[in-house]
Amino acid sequence: MSRPLGSIVEALGGELVGAPDTAIQRLAPLATAELDSLAFVASPRYAAQIATTRAACLIVPPSLRGAASERGACIVTSDPYLYFARLTQWWKREHTAEPPEDIHPTAVVHPTAELAQDVDIGAFVVIGAGVRIGAGARVGAHCVLGDHVQVGTQTVLHPRVTVGERCSVGERCVLHSGVVVGADGFGFAPHQGAWIKIEQLGAVRIGNDVDIGANTCIDRGALDDTVIEDGVKLDNLIQIGHNVHVGAHTAMAGCVGVAGSATIGAGCTIGGGAVVLGHLKLADGVHVSAASVVTRSLLKPGHYTGMFPIDDNATWEKNAASLKQLNRIRERLKAAENAIEQALQNNTKP
Amino acid sequence: MSRPLGSIVEALGGELVGAPDTAIQRLAPLATAELDSLAFVASPRYAAQIATTRAACLIVPPSLRGAASERGACIVTSDPYLYFARLTQWWKREHTAEPPEDIHPTAVVHPTAELAQDVDIGAFVVIGAGVRIGAGARVGAHCVLGDHVQVGTQTVLHPRVTVGERCSVGERCVLHSGVVVGADGFGFAPHQGAWIKIEQLGAVRIGNDVDIGANTCIDRGALDDTVIEDGVKLDNLIQIGHNVHVGAHTAMAGCVGVAGSATIGAGCTIGGGAVVLGHLKLADGVHVSAASVVTRSLLKPGHYTGMFPIDDNATWEKNAASLKQLNRIRERLKAAENAIEQALQNNTKP
Amino acid sequence: MSRPLGSIVEALGGELVGAPDTAIQRLAPLATAELDSLAFVASPRYAAQIATTRAACLIVPPSLRGAASERGACIVTSDPYLYFARLTQWWKREHTAEPPEDIHPTAVVHPTAELAQDVDIGAFVVIGAGVRIGAGARVGAHCVLGDHVQVGTQTVLHPRVTVGERCSVGERCVLHSGVVVGADGFGFAPHQGAWIKIEQLGAVRIGNDVDIGANTCIDRGALDDTVIEDGVKLDNLIQIGHNVHVGAHTAMAGCVGVAGSATIGAGCTIGGGAVVLGHLKLADGVHVSAASVVTRSLLKPGHYTGMFPIDDNATWEKNAASLKQLNRIRERLKAAENAIEQALQNNTKP
Repeated sequence: MSRPLGSIVEALGGELVGAPDTAIQRLAPLATAELDSLAFVASPRYAAQIATTRAACLIVPPSLRGAASERGACIVTSDPYLYFARLTQWWKREHTAEPPEDIHPTAVVHPTAELAQDVDIGAFVVIGAGVRIGAGARVGAHCVLGDHVQVGTQTVLHPRVTVGERCSVGERCVLHSGVVVGADGFGFAPHQGAWIKIEQLGAVRIGNDVDIGANTCIDRGALDDTVIEDGVKLDNLIQIGHNVHVGAHTAMAGCVGVAGSATIGAGCTIGGGAVVLGHLKLADGVHVSAASVVTRSLLKPGHYTGMFPIDDNATWEKNAASLKQLNRIRERLKAAENAIEQALQNNTKP
Repeated sequence: MSRPLGSIVEALGGELVGAPDTAIQRLAPLATAELDSLAFVASPRYAAQIATTRAACLIVPPSLRGAASERGACIVTSDPYLYFARLTQWWKREHTAEPPEDIHPTAVVHPTAELAQDVDIGAFVVIGAGVRIGAGARVGAHCVLGDHVQVGTQTVLHPRVTVGERCSVGERCVLHSGVVVGADGFGFAPHQGAWIKIEQLGAVRIGNDVDIGANTCIDRGALDDTVIEDGVKLDNLIQIGHNVHVGAHTAMAGCVGVAGSATIGAGCTIGGGAVVLGHLKLADGVHVSAASVVTRSLLKPGHYTGMFPIDDNATWEKNAASLKQLNRIRERLKAAENAIEQALQNNTKP
Repeated sequence: MSRPLGSIVEALGGELVGAPDTAIQRLAPLATAELDSLAFVASPRYAAQIATTRAACLIVPPSLRGAASERGACIVTSDPYLYFARLTQWWKREHTAEPPEDIHPTAVVHPTAELAQDVDIGAFVVIGAGVRIGAGARVGAHCVLGDHVQVGTQTVLHPRVTVGERCSVGERCVLHSGVVVGADGFGFAPHQGAWIKIEQLGAVRIGNDVDIGANTCIDRGALDDTVIEDGVKLDNLIQIGHNVHVGAHTAMAGCVGVAGSATIGAGCTIGGGAVVLGHLKLADGVHVSAASVVTRSLLKPGHYTGMFPIDDNATWEKNAASLKQLNRIRERLKAAENAIEQALQNNTKP
């Protein structure tokens, strides 16, 4: 399977320097590209690698046109990373034989469900009463959609996704295997040393163009709904508690935990393994570093971090032991400063 | 779907101030309650919101009866949060059309399994040899119960729960989608640079009234069993290692990890993302803050924390750099104190 | 079900001190062993428990032969822990009635899939086009294998494992329930405030003798493959990002997150809940403590840690508050040192 460079530029634009009939067999990173590969150079920082890569063609910004064309073919475009993203999408479409739209005979579809004509339903799927699935949506094998779930047009549920009753997923979303949308939020009232369950009566509403990674969980709201706005990107193994609100185009890396009723703004990024405590508010444009714990609302856009720096274990042990006395160290420093101050005053007395 | 206030008080008690035929269509938070909504005010701290909420009726403690009844209907009860919890349960029962008990024709049930007469078994469920399921239990679509699993009466397994062979789940439990009970514990003996698997021969025993969140994992014991006692509440994406023992009515928030052979007491709470290392012991009534790492046994009840405070990134960078020299700072402080001490002694010499 | 001591030594070696017809009904920990149990003592550190255990027989190193044989039967072997690991494997084989190899009639197997003759395929399994499954492999109920997946001989997929198209799993691997191999890596290009998906065109290649815990996720590579080498052991709920490379015999405890393009050497151990950031390199023989965050490459073997020490909450609060001023404390200390230095110089002036 190969594509000529000319067909790529025809589909995606950019200026081709070189022969349009050059055959590309693979998209590859600069470092492992071979003579049949197309690679990209996102920024002049990587210019040094242009001389050594074996790639047949490079996607480069205008500033690298000279260096790239000296060594061979190139596609010049203003944003090579964006061009590359679109190229991966085109490449996948070209190389994927889409299965014919089909409702697999083993699927259990409730008679009141409304499926648009060209949806694709995999083996052993279970679809509840009143479910509505939009045109072109694909529901992978082993998915379970509870009663009255809605799935928008062109959305892809990979195999083994669970969407609980009354939850909705927008258009052009991608939910990966193991995702659970609409499990009960974690709500219990304490009573005589035990916990009394608060039934979770809300649902989950997911916007358009949302991607959700494998085994990520989004709980239904207690009374109101949990809301994920358009364009949000969630990586794998993320926990979103009940009544959380995630603003548009916010992205979270793997293993993040967001506790109940937190409100996260639009255009935020949350690093892997970070934790956001409950009922907090993060403004638009807040960026939280990996493994940081957000313990207070962050009302100004900016970059926030809280993470113990890693060190060799022996050094860490000493510093960690001192850390447990840090407040005492501060008090001792204050006393030393006072003693110095006192001594200086005595010395300057006549 | 609506219910008159009178029917609520009839079912759940409390003193109704106002017209019993007032129709309630929704349970709602104070802030988003509308004219058809019932809301609750758990404590006088929220008294200020009483004046502004649009709710048709408020559940309040006796101390707020005056303020609440001035603005409209109210239900007076000693513990509004508990009342609200029970109300959500009643509301859900009233509004849920329970499916008729049924064994779905696609379920694969081993002929030696013993199912009480009124159990409900979903589509594509797989039930192994010697399984026993108690009266009124519901096993959601796509659940897999290994050989000799026991499930107690009234327990609900949501779709796609896996319970491994010989594990048992008590009565009135709720296991959410993606839960894995009884995967192998993580046990390997090192040998010549490789790892030799220690087969995990124990099982998992889960008590009554236990709730387990989506995609949470509880591993089987190596020789003895992993034990979760009555009334334990586990949120989503929690890892419980082999041979862990969790005491009654302990609650853990999402993304907690408990390593093998840890023993956690009764009535504990573990915050989201916290880690408990292996072979440690936590007394009854230990409360661990979110994202804290328990590296030693905590033998006294109390509240424990260990978490790097979040800050703007630039400030964090400076403090984190200093932290890596903290032990050196302590030594320098000691030297300064000695110098001051020496100077003072010299000054007081005759 | 019981086995005489003699049959154990016959199968696994070691020197038996005691009667070969002693019946063993259970493998047990020292502390809970009963009169029918076989237990092991890995090291002289546990010698004190030899006197009090009720076990019928002990597996001991040569140095404990005397103490053990005084109280009853024992098996003497150079590495009791390794012996015990092999004993658990033998015990499981002896006690497990393997189901006959079978392709369950409900499984949906693509006609182009190649299954070795003695594979076992569970209920509701879905096997795509061009899949190849090696001899003796077992595919549990509800597994989904995408097109062109390869599974090696003797590998066990527990119920409900998903392996995405073109991914491969080696020989003698064990994948536990809920594992997702080959979901899309988390790759998006920013564009005008939104995220443009980078299709993930690589796959996942898993070596031989790899164990993967419940609900762990391993993402497919963006262009090249994500690679897990032979003998790697991954616990539950671990996230492995795209293009990560994990070296042979490395082990990771539960809830670890490894971000994209990280390269982890051979023979490493990563503690529970640790995070490894993207594009970093860890040398062979690097050991990372639980809950530590690897923010820079670790190019030398060794033991590394970064974790806030836990304390009672009140003490933590004081130390955490001081920590936020640590850089300021360092500056104040410098000033105090300068003042002392100055004072000493003045005092020593003639």
